[in-house]
Amino acid sequence: MTENLLGTDIVTQVAIIVQDVARTSRAWAELLGVPVPEAKLTDPLSEAHTLYKGEPTQARAKLAFFRLGQVSLELIEPVGRPSTWGDFLDEHGEGIHHVAFNIKGMDDVLLRLDAHQMPLIQRGDYTGGRYAYVDGVPRLGAILELLENF
Amino acid sequence: MTENLLGTDIVTQVAIIVQDVARTSRAWAELLGVPVPEAKLTDPLSEAHTLYKGEPTQARAKLAFFRLGQVSLELIEPVGRPSTWGDFLDEHGEGIHHVAFNIKGMDDVLLRLDAHQMPLIQRGDYTGGRYAYVDGVPRLGAILELLENF
Repeated sequence: MTENLLGTDIVTQVAIIVQDVARTSRAWAELLGVPVPEAKLTDPLSEAHTLYKGEPTQARAKLAFFRLGQVSLELIEPVGRPSTWGDFLDEHGEGIHHVAFNIKGMDDVLLRLDAHQMPLIQRGDYTGGRYAYVDGVPRLGAILELLENF
Repeated sequence: MTENLLGTDIVTQVAIIVQDVARTSRAWAELLGVPVPEAKLTDPLSEAHTLYKGEPTQARAKLAFFRLGQVSLELIEPVGRPSTWGDFLDEHGEGIHHVAFNIKGMDDVLLRLDAHQMPLIQRGDYTGGRYAYVDGVPRLGAILELLENF
C-alpha cells in the first residue's frame, strides 16, 4: 500500500463529448425519464482563464448535467478550439472523455501526477472552483479531471 | 416526466478498454494507493454464450476491477475477435468504453431501448448474472452496459 496520489478514490463525474448538447440532452432525458436540463456556456477566457497546453485559449464549451446516483453525468459540446474537448471530438468523434475526482490542493496533486507521467493538458476556473485535465491515456487509458471547489 | 427506460438512474460501473490489463492495473493501483488486482479471463463461449451482433463469438476479455466509491472501474483487455471490446480498441485505441447500470428484466429493457433506436450489440452470461451492451453512441454519445445479477 502506498499513498493515494489523488487523495480520494471517489469518482464524482463521467463526461461525454457530443456534437450537439441540446440533442443529446433530450435523448438522456428520455432514457432517464427526467426533464431536459438547460445547457450553459462556460465562462469566457477573461473569467475562466483557460490554459490549453500552457497557452491561453478562447475555446469554450456548452455543458449539461444529469444525476446518476453518486456520479454526475456531464455532456460537453466543444465551442471553438483549441481545447481537450475539441481534440477529442475531432480525433474520436462522440464518446466518453474523462472521469473526474474532487481533490484538495490542485497544484500539489498536479505535481504528483506529473512526476508519475500524467501531465497537465488544460486548466481553468469556474464560479466557485477550478478544474484541470490530466493526460492519463498512456498509463491509465483515460483522461482524468481534477475538480477543486472552494 | 416519463418512464425511466432503464428502471434505474444509478451508474454502477465505468469501463476502460486497454491493450494490456496487467500494465494498466499497475498504473491505477499506483494512482489509488491500493494493491494490484488479479485480472481474470472471461468464460469461454460454452459457458458465456457470447453473442456479438446476434452470432456466437469465441472472443473473450481479461478483466480487472477497482472500487471508486459507488462505482466500479473495470479494465478490459480484448482477447480474440469479434467483440465490442475489440471493435473499440481497433477503432479508437485505449479509452472509456461504457457506463453500466444494474437492471431487472433484461429482455424487456432491451426491447424498450431497441424501440428508442438503441440496439443490442453484444450479450452474454457470467457466473451469477448476464450482461448486454447497447449501442447508445448515435443518441447518447456512449455505449451502455446492462447488468442483471440473479
